[in-house]
Amino acid sequence: MPDTIGIIGLGIMGKPMAHNLLKAGFSLVVQHRHQNITDEFVALGAQSAILPRDVAALCDVVITLLPDSSVVEEILIGPNGVIEGAHKDLVVIDMSTISPLVTHTLAARLAEQNIAMLDAPVSGGDVGAIAGTLSIMVGGDEATFTRCLPIFQALGTTIVHIGENGSGQIVKACNQIVVALIFEAISEALVLGSKAGVDPNKILKVLGGGMAANRAMELRGPTMIKHNFTPGGRISIHHKDLGIVLETARTYGVSLPVTAIVDQMFASLEASGRGNLDHSALLTYIEDLASYHIGEIS
Amino acid sequence: MPDTIGIIGLGIMGKPMAHNLLKAGFSLVVQHRHQNITDEFVALGAQSAILPRDVAALCDVVITLLPDSSVVEEILIGPNGVIEGAHKDLVVIDMSTISPLVTHTLAARLAEQNIAMLDAPVSGGDVGAIAGTLSIMVGGDEATFTRCLPIFQALGTTIVHIGENGSGQIVKACNQIVVALIFEAISEALVLGSKAGVDPNKILKVLGGGMAANRAMELRGPTMIKHNFTPGGRISIHHKDLGIVLETARTYGVSLPVTAIVDQMFASLEASGRGNLDHSALLTYIEDLASYHIGEIS
Repeated sequence: MPDTIGIIGLGIMGKPMAHNLLKAGFSLVVQHRHQNITDEFVALGAQSAILPRDVAALCDVVITLLPDSSVVEEILIGPNGVIEGAHKDLVVIDMSTISPLVTHTLAARLAEQNIAMLDAPVSGGDVGAIAGTLSIMVGGDEATFTRCLPIFQALGTTIVHIGENGSGQIVKACNQIVVALIFEAISEALVLGSKAGVDPNKILKVLGGGMAANRAMELRGPTMIKHNFTPGGRISIHHKDLGIVLETARTYGVSLPVTAIVDQMFASLEASGRGNLDHSALLTYIEDLASYHIGEIS
Repeated sequence: MPDTIGIIGLGIMGKPMAHNLLKAGFSLVVQHRHQNITDEFVALGAQSAILPRDVAALCDVVITLLPDSSVVEEILIGPNGVIEGAHKDLVVIDMSTISPLVTHTLAARLAEQNIAMLDAPVSGGDVGAIAGTLSIMVGGDEATFTRCLPIFQALGTTIVHIGENGSGQIVKACNQIVVALIFEAISEALVLGSKAGVDPNKILKVLGGGMAANRAMELRGPTMIKHNFTPGGRISIHHKDLGIVLETARTYGVSLPVTAIVDQMFASLEASGRGNLDHSALLTYIEDLASYHIGEIS
C-alpha cells in the first residue's frame, strides 16, 4: 500500500506538488495556514489537520515545504510540532530551502525520537512543480532515500542522493547561486542591448541558440521583456536563500564575490517594496541603474 | 553557381567553419598567418592568397574571423587590405567579435568603394563551429543579409538579422555578458559545494536538471571539474570582448556592475599567465580566493 503523506505548506511549490502526489495515488493529510487552500484538497479526498503533531500521527511520511529555517524548526520541533506525533517508521522530508547547518541540528534532534529525516530541496520553479519535472537533491541516510524514492518520482525527473543530512541543502545553495547570477546576466544583457537600440526579443532568440542558452532565460526571458514579474520564485525568498549561501560560504571558508553583490541587489529590491515580485525582476535593478526601461525605444 | 568565398583567419573558429563551407560546396580562398594551416585547405581544393586585397579580388564574399577591432581594421582598410581588391558586388562579412562602433566606421568606409558589409559574429564555441550549429547575429542591409543566407546556413542553425550595421556586434556583446557571468556562477557554485564536502559531479547533475540548467555548464562543467582548460574560448579573447561590452555600455549610458567585476577577474587571470586557458578557467580565480581546488576532499 502506498504511504500516507502529510504535507505541511501549500504555497507556490507545495500546492502543485500535493496535486502530483494525489495523482500518483498517495493518500494525503494537508496542513496550511489558510483553510481555503486545505479545503480544496479535502474536496479531492485528502484529510486535513491543524497541528503538525496530528499530521505526523496520521502519516507515514511528513513533507515540509516552508519559507525558512525558523519556520521549519518550529513546525518540526516546536510546541505541537511533528516530533510530538512521532511513531514507528515516521520519516520527515524537508523539501524547503533552509540552512544546511540547521538541517544537521534538526536531523539529530529528530533522530533522538527515532524519526528519520531527509533534506530534499528542489529546483525547477513553479513550472517544474506543476509538470512534475523537478530536480530533487537529497541528503540523509541511503536506506531512507530508497524508501522514499516513489514519492520523489511523483514529483520530479532528476532525483539525486547527494550524501549525508544537509548535503541536499548544500547543493540547493549552489543552485541558488547559479539561478541568481543567470538572472543578473540576462538583466545586464537585455538592458545593454535594448538601450543600444536592439529589439530585446532578438537578443533572446540569438542567445538561446548559442553558448549563452539557459533554462531561466527560456522560461523567464519573454516575461522579463514584458515586465511581467508574477512569481514564480519571489525575490524575498531568493534573497533569503542567498543569505543561506553566504552563511554557508562563511562557515566553509569560501569567498563568493558576485553572489555577495547580487545578494545586495536583492536586498535593495526588497527595501524598495519589490520583494514579492519574481526573482527575474532583478532586471528592474539594472534598469534603474541605467534610468531606462527595456520597453522604450532608445 | 555558389559564391567563391574568401576566409581570412583560420583559428579555433575559422578552421572548422571553412571546412563546413567546403562541405556545402563553396569554392574557398584562404588566408592565414601560418602557411601550414592554409596548406591543409589547399590540399582539399581551396586556393590560398597572401594579401587581403588578392583574396578580395578572387572572391564574391570575404569572411573575416580575426582577434580584435584593430586587426579587422588593418585587414579591411589598411595597406593591401580588402578595400584595395574592391570589385562589383563584393560583400565583406566580418564574423569576428569587435566593437560595434568600429563596425559602424568600417561599414561606412567600405560603402564608399561600393563594398557591402555585414557584421555577423557567432556564438556556440568551437563545438558549434565544428557541428555547424552556430548562432549567428547579423547587422547590415537586409538585401545583403538575404544574399548571404546560404553561407550562414552552412555554418549555423540560429541565424537572425538584427538590424543595421553594428547591431550584430551589440547582440554579441550581450552574449558575452551572459556567457562570462554563467561561468562565474558555475565557478562560485562548484567551489562552495565542493569545499562544503559535496561531489562536484553531483552538483552538475542536479543543477542540470532544474532552473539552473545551461549550455555552458553542460559543455564545460565536466572539464572544469577535471581542470581541463584547453580552449574553446580563451580568457584573453573573452577579456577583450568584455572590454568591448564595457566600452559599449559607456557609450550608451548603461551600468553593468557584475560584468565590470568579472572583467577584472579576467584581467587578473591574464596578468597571472592564464590568458590562453579556456574562459571556464574563471573557476581557478574563485578557487584561489578560497585557497582550495575542487579536486580535493575537504
